[in-house]
Amino acid sequence: MTHSRPSLAVVGATGVIGGVMLQILSQHADVWGEVKLISSPRSAGRKLVVRGAETEVLALHEDVFDGVDVALFLVPDDVSARWAPVAVAKGAVVIDDSAAFRMDDDVPLVVPEINSHAARLRPRGIVASPHCTTLSLIVAVGALHAEFGLRELIVSSYQAVSGAGREGVAALREELSLVAGTELGTHPGDVRRALGDGGASPFAAPVALNVVPWAGTDAGHGWSSEEIAIRQECRKILSLPNLRATATCVYVPVVATHSMSVHARFENEVPVHRAHEILATAPGVVLFDSPAAGDFPTPSDVVGTDPTWVGRVRQSMDDPRALEMFICGDNLRKGAALNIAQIAESVAAEFPRT
Amino acid sequence: MTHSRPSLAVVGATGVIGGVMLQILSQHADVWGEVKLISSPRSAGRKLVVRGAETEVLALHEDVFDGVDVALFLVPDDVSARWAPVAVAKGAVVIDDSAAFRMDDDVPLVVPEINSHAARLRPRGIVASPHCTTLSLIVAVGALHAEFGLRELIVSSYQAVSGAGREGVAALREELSLVAGTELGTHPGDVRRALGDGGASPFAAPVALNVVPWAGTDAGHGWSSEEIAIRQECRKILSLPNLRATATCVYVPVVATHSMSVHARFENEVPVHRAHEILATAPGVVLFDSPAAGDFPTPSDVVGTDPTWVGRVRQSMDDPRALEMFICGDNLRKGAALNIAQIAESVAAEFPRT
Ligand SMILES: NC(=O)c1ccc[n+]([C@@H]2O[C@H](COP(=O)([O-])OP(=O)(O)OC[C@H]3O[C@@H](n4cnc5c(N)ncnc54)[C@H](OP(=O)(O)O)[C@@H]3O)[C@@H](O)[C@H]2O)c1
Ligand SMILES: NC(=O)c1ccc[n+]([C@@H]2O[C@H](COP(=O)([O-])OP(=O)(O)OC[C@H]3O[C@@H](n4cnc5c(N)ncnc54)[C@H](OP(=O)(O)O)[C@@H]3O)[C@@H](O)[C@H]2O)c1
Repeated sequence: MTHSRPSLAVVGATGVIGGVMLQILSQHADVWGEVKLISSPRSAGRKLVVRGAETEVLALHEDVFDGVDVALFLVPDDVSARWAPVAVAKGAVVIDDSAAFRMDDDVPLVVPEINSHAARLRPRGIVASPHCTTLSLIVAVGALHAEFGLRELIVSSYQAVSGAGREGVAALREELSLVAGTELGTHPGDVRRALGDGGASPFAAPVALNVVPWAGTDAGHGWSSEEIAIRQECRKILSLPNLRATATCVYVPVVATHSMSVHARFENEVPVHRAHEILATAPGVVLFDSPAAGDFPTPSDVVGTDPTWVGRVRQSMDDPRALEMFICGDNLRKGAALNIAQIAESVAAEFPRT
Repeated sequence: MTHSRPSLAVVGATGVIGGVMLQILSQHADVWGEVKLISSPRSAGRKLVVRGAETEVLALHEDVFDGVDVALFLVPDDVSARWAPVAVAKGAVVIDDSAAFRMDDDVPLVVPEINSHAARLRPRGIVASPHCTTLSLIVAVGALHAEFGLRELIVSSYQAVSGAGREGVAALREELSLVAGTELGTHPGDVRRALGDGGASPFAAPVALNVVPWAGTDAGHGWSSEEIAIRQECRKILSLPNLRATATCVYVPVVATHSMSVHARFENEVPVHRAHEILATAPGVVLFDSPAAGDFPTPSDVVGTDPTWVGRVRQSMDDPRALEMFICGDNLRKGAALNIAQIAESVAAEFPRT
């Protein structure tokens, strides 16, 4: 049996990213044949709507990949590590949102606005999508790099709790309900007392009315795994193996949309008006930069939108080759589901139309 | 009439900083004679407790400075600009928390842990205390500078709403009560809809469930006044007129305690163990840096405490002379009232004991 359009499997359809992916599949031009939704046995049997049709969620199993051309993996690292090769063996191209394969030399790490060509060479049959913090940053920085030659990045993040999945959002919601009744005074200990231990949170400290300078796991020498990921992923995506890149990752009490304060130094001088011209026309970027008029990006402006928003562009007073910027991107859309959908659609275009 | 101890006036006793100042006056060793509390006519007549005694608040007027030896100004810039010289003319030494005199060459800008000597030379009779963002940073950075020679600072702030005074705290409280009943979903627009315009807020965007990358007023070329203040004040306090210093100032939904992600480059190499030794013994600094065990400073740990807390100390992977750090300081204590109290106590020690 031939089918005119490639078939798709969404593994992890019941998660935070999975939910946004189903919205995007219903909104974008439909390039897919059959769409299978897959989760763990916990959620199997649930019915979700995609492209207007109720679709039953299947439990992850070797046989679900029969006849699947493209499989999106929106699941934890260990699930991807185990099951992506199974899907490939069954003939699918895998596009993976986890960290399992991102630094594998035989797996391209793809941001379509920057290195779409890389998705075509995939020795292991797998394409990886970067971490959401990298994605919220790289589209804007990549456009400037193409013009000025990036030499160094120093990034401080303001990360949304949904970056930690369903549990991150639940932790903020619960903590906020705890402090809602309190006076929110400025008296020593008020906040700590109201928050207590923070319950079953994925964060290492309370996140409501607080900021938490730790994301991911211990990567040695004081670094967190997400800080190392930003460095390595930027180097790989931009093909700059020696790029100087430093990140400090901090969670803030925001539901969705990661923000970044970025110091970027280039090979050449970067007048603000030239940076503005490039950002205003770069694909996937919105320039929103008139601070005296109140125009700068904040998560509440950006949440639910596709592009990377850039504002607060300033030329360093100490080095005419350096820019300061404030960048926001919805971690659930461009930071995850949208980037995966863009890669998947470019892979779909490789399939012969019959 | 001689008095054995200098008399004190607290101008702005009814504000956020004034309230913390009254606590500190009650807690510290008492070096003062009479203490007068002063506000605008709006609050005059109120009774506040200081050193255990109910004290009536007086309206600001030339005559209130009669017999005052030391006057603390905890009021808006324009009020300090007009009234500090009046207090000096009446014979008082003024210690000012506003921005009115900080960059005046004839006014020392003092952080006792770093340049206590500077408070003794005050051609205008005025000593200025730095901005709260500078103060939350400089005690730790100054200790490292003394050892390694500071060359460059790149700072991104996570500023508490109380940095904008009573109105900042009121705005966060009101916005949080608006979102408390909502589902806090991750659906596009949820947050924006719940927050609306944010009412009469001192911030340029909603601050609950959001971050706002703008603090102060327009300082030209895209910079905010607080970003310029950090640069200029660090240069002045450290006597480093050519220090490279860049800041990005961002408000976060935290009640009190400013946090900073700091990239600091020094003249000499800075192994983490040496930085730890210096920070662990520096006056006014707490080292809290064992992230794998969950030990890093967050506002909920630091609020209500006196010192500057430092954690997440990492040596740059690209430059052995650079350190990354995360620094927290209570903007109402060391960031304002405590620093003023420390300066005032050193001035009090100049008065002859009779
Ligand atoms: N959140 C973000 O901002 C973001 C951004 C970029 C990348 N990512 C990555 O995307 C992936 C998914 O993240 P998320 O935030 O959507 O997580 P999530 O909300 O916790 O959802 C996890 C999903 O994985 C499924 N799953 C878990 N264990 C499974 C198993 N053993 N077999 C089959 N399915 C299993 C879950 O199915 P059940 O319903 O059956 O449990 C659910 O659909 C992760 O690798 C994450 O690191 C997330
Ligand atoms: N909040 C911080 O983190 C922080 C940190 C460092 C420095 N500062 C500086 O400290 C100063 C006070 O800040 P704040 O946060 O305490 O402000 P606030 O809470 O708004 O209090 C303002 C105080 O100034 C008094 N005042 C206002 N106009 C006056 C006038 N015309 N005559 C006499 N008194 C007048 C007010 O008295 P009424 O009660 O009569 O209105 C009140 O006591 C400002 O210069 C601020 O920039 C603040």
